[in-house]
Amino acid sequence: MPLMTAEFDRDIAVHRSAVGEYAAELGAGWVVGGGVNGGYALAVLGNAVADFAAELGHPDPFVVNAHYLTACRPGPATARVRLVRNGRSLTTVTASLSQQQDGVEVERVTALASYGDLTRLSADVATTAEEPELPPRDQCVPNSLAPAEFAKMAPLLDRFELLADPACVGWAVGEPSGRGMLQGWFRLNDERDLDAVALLLAVDALPPVTFDLGLPGWAPTLELTVHVRAVPAPGWVKLRHATRNVAGGYFEEDCEVWDSAGRLVAQSRQLARAPR
Amino acid sequence: MPLMTAEFDRDIAVHRSAVGEYAAELGAGWVVGGGVNGGYALAVLGNAVADFAAELGHPDPFVVNAHYLTACRPGPATARVRLVRNGRSLTTVTASLSQQQDGVEVERVTALASYGDLTRLSADVATTAEEPELPPRDQCVPNSLAPAEFAKMAPLLDRFELLADPACVGWAVGEPSGRGMLQGWFRLNDERDLDAVALLLAVDALPPVTFDLGLPGWAPTLELTVHVRAVPAPGWVKLRHATRNVAGGYFEEDCEVWDSAGRLVAQSRQLARAPR
Repeated sequence: MPLMTAEFDRDIAVHRSAVGEYAAELGAGWVVGGGVNGGYALAVLGNAVADFAAELGHPDPFVVNAHYLTACRPGPATARVRLVRNGRSLTTVTASLSQQQDGVEVERVTALASYGDLTRLSADVATTAEEPELPPRDQCVPNSLAPAEFAKMAPLLDRFELLADPACVGWAVGEPSGRGMLQGWFRLNDERDLDAVALLLAVDALPPVTFDLGLPGWAPTLELTVHVRAVPAPGWVKLRHATRNVAGGYFEEDCEVWDSAGRLVAQSRQLARAPR
Repeated sequence: MPLMTAEFDRDIAVHRSAVGEYAAELGAGWVVGGGVNGGYALAVLGNAVADFAAELGHPDPFVVNAHYLTACRPGPATARVRLVRNGRSLTTVTASLSQQQDGVEVERVTALASYGDLTRLSADVATTAEEPELPPRDQCVPNSLAPAEFAKMAPLLDRFELLADPACVGWAVGEPSGRGMLQGWFRLNDERDLDAVALLLAVDALPPVTFDLGLPGWAPTLELTVHVRAVPAPGWVKLRHATRNVAGGYFEEDCEVWDSAGRLVAQSRQLARAPR
């Protein structure tokens, strides 16, 4: 065990209070806009599920679906996990994250998840998706350069290093590319390597891809589904977010996470409300 | 009301037995390989949710996540729907489909869904995804020409007309393209137009996309997520299935459904086990 616990580990820690019930504390550092970041909230909930499912032989998220019901606030939260099925390869659960609000418990996130053991998968890889091409890190735009007005709304930006592809940051100076794509290098503070649970955060850590379409407003996530396909190799990952269907006031946002070994380790899709 | 009820409507019919509880009958005609087709099972469950959520002002599926726990068999089934949240735009529920097996109730599908009202969405469409290019229908390969050995395993094929892009049917004669893509024209029997619930079937009606990779075996779906973005215009739809990440014994399969007006009306992704 390292002497220092990384910030991310402190902030996703859960404490079992009963079978399938966990106490957590949502950190104020993960706020963006009107609430706590949805990917971080999912990592906290996913960490509780990991504790629950590990006892059934399945410590790693394979597929997680989350519906965001109400905005998470910094402070105490309760995660509840209920077993649906403990199979040979996968354990399926429902999971829920809730918080007290005005003396009433309010559900924030409701989730469905199947966990397995990523270390038991075959080593075969026949990926045809193409790894994003990014400029070297020293030619990218670090999140530390985010406009002050934006950074003030997003303490989240201080939790990780994001080195954005310069071709995707035009929105910050009023010149979005219009492609609906954001990509960059990513790693957590304290050089804490990503693991399977941390991927649940990584897929929702970037600004909404609608920024690149000239729609800079808040884009609340309604639903987020993450497929975790492998434990990332240590080091920086590449994140790529894109949308292809902005319509009817909603848009889908796909994210890919590629690890330092060039493997596609996570794929996610969310449905979000388009900024007005 | 038309005098004749279409086959699909008869086969997805549910009968409310209590608040949030529905009786259904899974039709033997929807079997493929070892069990009842997962898209059809989801349409039955989604139909029960539609009845439940319509009373709360939200008749249409917006996002449905399903985890397939055990193989569905033809015969009686029970759908249960539980309210998670009735919001202004969306109603979120958990839903479950189960069947009796050896005198014990066994859960087949567990789902999470948010329903809304598609007719209330704005008419704005800014889709950048490209509509699949398909040859005219009379130049495509109808499912009625499926190899006899395959058709015997798949009564499902008699429930709809599928006119496959000739470039995608090489697998049937031992010459898969290797691209991991299947596409074609699709409509239900009785010329029953697709609606929002029928899209839950359509996204899982084609053979596994791994056929096109030279892996002709059974590919059980573990999880399927569907985003329904609009009610399809009447007539034939285009279906396009593709995979980009076959790895570790699993693969993702994305499906798009494009309606006769050229609109991307549904996007789905599933995680399935790769054929051995």
